[in-house]
Amino acid sequence: MTSTTDDSHSTKGSYVHSGEEYSRDMRYLATRITRDGRDGYPVEAGRYRLVAARACPWANRAVIVRRLLGLEDALSMGLCGPVHDARSWTFDLDPGGVDPVLGYERLQEAYFARDPEYPLGITVPAIVDVPTKAVATNDFDQITRDLFFEWSDFHRPGAPDLWPEPLRDEMETVMKRVFTEVNNGVYRCGFAGSQKAYDAAYDRLWTALDWLEERLTTRRYLMGDTITEADVRLFTTLARFDPVYHGHFKCNRQKLTEMPVLWAYARDLFQTPGFGDTTDFDQIKAHYYVVHSDINPTRIVPRGPDLAGWTAPHGREHLGGRPFGDGTAPEVLPAGTLAT
Amino acid sequence: MTSTTDDSHSTKGSYVHSGEEYSRDMRYLATRITRDGRDGYPVEAGRYRLVAARACPWANRAVIVRRLLGLEDALSMGLCGPVHDARSWTFDLDPGGVDPVLGYERLQEAYFARDPEYPLGITVPAIVDVPTKAVATNDFDQITRDLFFEWSDFHRPGAPDLWPEPLRDEMETVMKRVFTEVNNGVYRCGFAGSQKAYDAAYDRLWTALDWLEERLTTRRYLMGDTITEADVRLFTTLARFDPVYHGHFKCNRQKLTEMPVLWAYARDLFQTPGFGDTTDFDQIKAHYYVVHSDINPTRIVPRGPDLAGWTAPHGREHLGGRPFGDGTAPEVLPAGTLAT
Repeated sequence: MTSTTDDSHSTKGSYVHSGEEYSRDMRYLATRITRDGRDGYPVEAGRYRLVAARACPWANRAVIVRRLLGLEDALSMGLCGPVHDARSWTFDLDPGGVDPVLGYERLQEAYFARDPEYPLGITVPAIVDVPTKAVATNDFDQITRDLFFEWSDFHRPGAPDLWPEPLRDEMETVMKRVFTEVNNGVYRCGFAGSQKAYDAAYDRLWTALDWLEERLTTRRYLMGDTITEADVRLFTTLARFDPVYHGHFKCNRQKLTEMPVLWAYARDLFQTPGFGDTTDFDQIKAHYYVVHSDINPTRIVPRGPDLAGWTAPHGREHLGGRPFGDGTAPEVLPAGTLAT
Repeated sequence: MTSTTDDSHSTKGSYVHSGEEYSRDMRYLATRITRDGRDGYPVEAGRYRLVAARACPWANRAVIVRRLLGLEDALSMGLCGPVHDARSWTFDLDPGGVDPVLGYERLQEAYFARDPEYPLGITVPAIVDVPTKAVATNDFDQITRDLFFEWSDFHRPGAPDLWPEPLRDEMETVMKRVFTEVNNGVYRCGFAGSQKAYDAAYDRLWTALDWLEERLTTRRYLMGDTITEADVRLFTTLARFDPVYHGHFKCNRQKLTEMPVLWAYARDLFQTPGFGDTTDFDQIKAHYYVVHSDINPTRIVPRGPDLAGWTAPHGREHLGGRPFGDGTAPEVLPAGTLAT
């Protein structure tokens, strides 16, 4: 990374740097929560709190995986509101504006408890060690890996295998391309500091989306017959595509609704427990349109798009597949209820 | 009008006024070019020059009507580039940046020739009196009326009746609603100075678009079987809808491509001589995204949307109709050529 810029899950600084290509700050705390506790943070039921925000795609990954794996009882969750200020995500959705477990108003406090001079962005997802009220880890890529591999003693019965052994090498290749070209590719469009940087970013993004449209024509899920971590990672970007990235980030060759395969794939996942029930379109729109005032100075949040289509039949059953493989789906929540 | 704000065909000032509803400045020069020359500007072939910009929907009306009526030889046309500065539209597309007939670099000069203290925005369309090099009229609503009723001696053989006598009362009602709710309605969304003003504008716009979607389900054209001035006025907004208004102005309940009737209607017109061949999507996008830096501070112009669909079959023939009534179509231009 050549420059320190920021993104949707951080609260530091501005987003567009004139003349520059967008570059994501990928520096995170190096510690992990592991079975053997080698970094001082052993896996332990009830000890940690996942702090997320429904708006943030990187945090949304962890929220989905926690639910798919049934980690709700072992790992509690605190939720920040969609609209953070320049310094921190805040617990403004909680009564009194305070997280009931941590007693914090601002997620920043958990970072400062870890390091009083913490120099980087205050990001979600973060997993906070409740006894010390300090952030144990905030590396979003590692967090969902560890929820699967390190927390397996606490998975629910029937938890799906999100990382099937025979597919892992291919998964890493697919996930890397999805990350650089799609998950981060939309930001590269939206935060481009020049027309040239935007044009290049747009070409990269649509090359990747065309690849996915083709790949998913014959596969129910990204890796084949069952839902894997790769689907989780693609889904959180697709869910934000029409509400935010299409207009706000100028990713506008087509809407997701105009990419027939990707749109049906996204609906298929949305209608699967763990996906749609962790997606809050209102918070998603509020976050991006209000926080990125350098590309939306009025901070006005669009009323569209019409989202009714998300619950329409997806017609992907003919591709076969067993969404949860040998496992089972999480319990279905009442319609309109979001997972907590 | 309660405040003086500005719009797509003017170059004066800023666009969004915090806390305020958008209000279009509707003050124009009061003089008209008429058959009897009562304002000092008699209709005369070769005497006047229509100054337009392909980007501007209000100017696009006059460009379409001039072509449908075959007034090209009687009324010459100068074209400003899409990206004006804060003071004036400019002839930056012409060799040397100078209009070859008027000798001006800036349209402002023609306004100052009319009134050295001209106090309002420098707008297109403007019709300039070539002998005095001064603007004769810039009232966009009146200009297309006068091109039809006052310039009829110079219409081509087969020029269509854009104002059929039996329909005029209904036309005025329809055109008024199209103007306030759609043509201007998109600006009311885009330049809203508060969330509340935007929300109200969004509801008004979509109420009107739903009305049009229904009206055009059983009518080939807005007034029935033939193309009228009412279609010209609606078309110039629809052509700009997905490239600009959907994202830039947050008119994003659906894209035009997702309103099946309106989309087919717009394609039907686009594929009719006089409409698509006066529409320049690149100039349209460049204009809005570069000029309105208060809502697009980066001035980056989106690469999308994919416009290939405009030439797809529209399937509206089953509604019957005779596009030009007892008249004929203008000559078809070679593919990819814009009318001059």
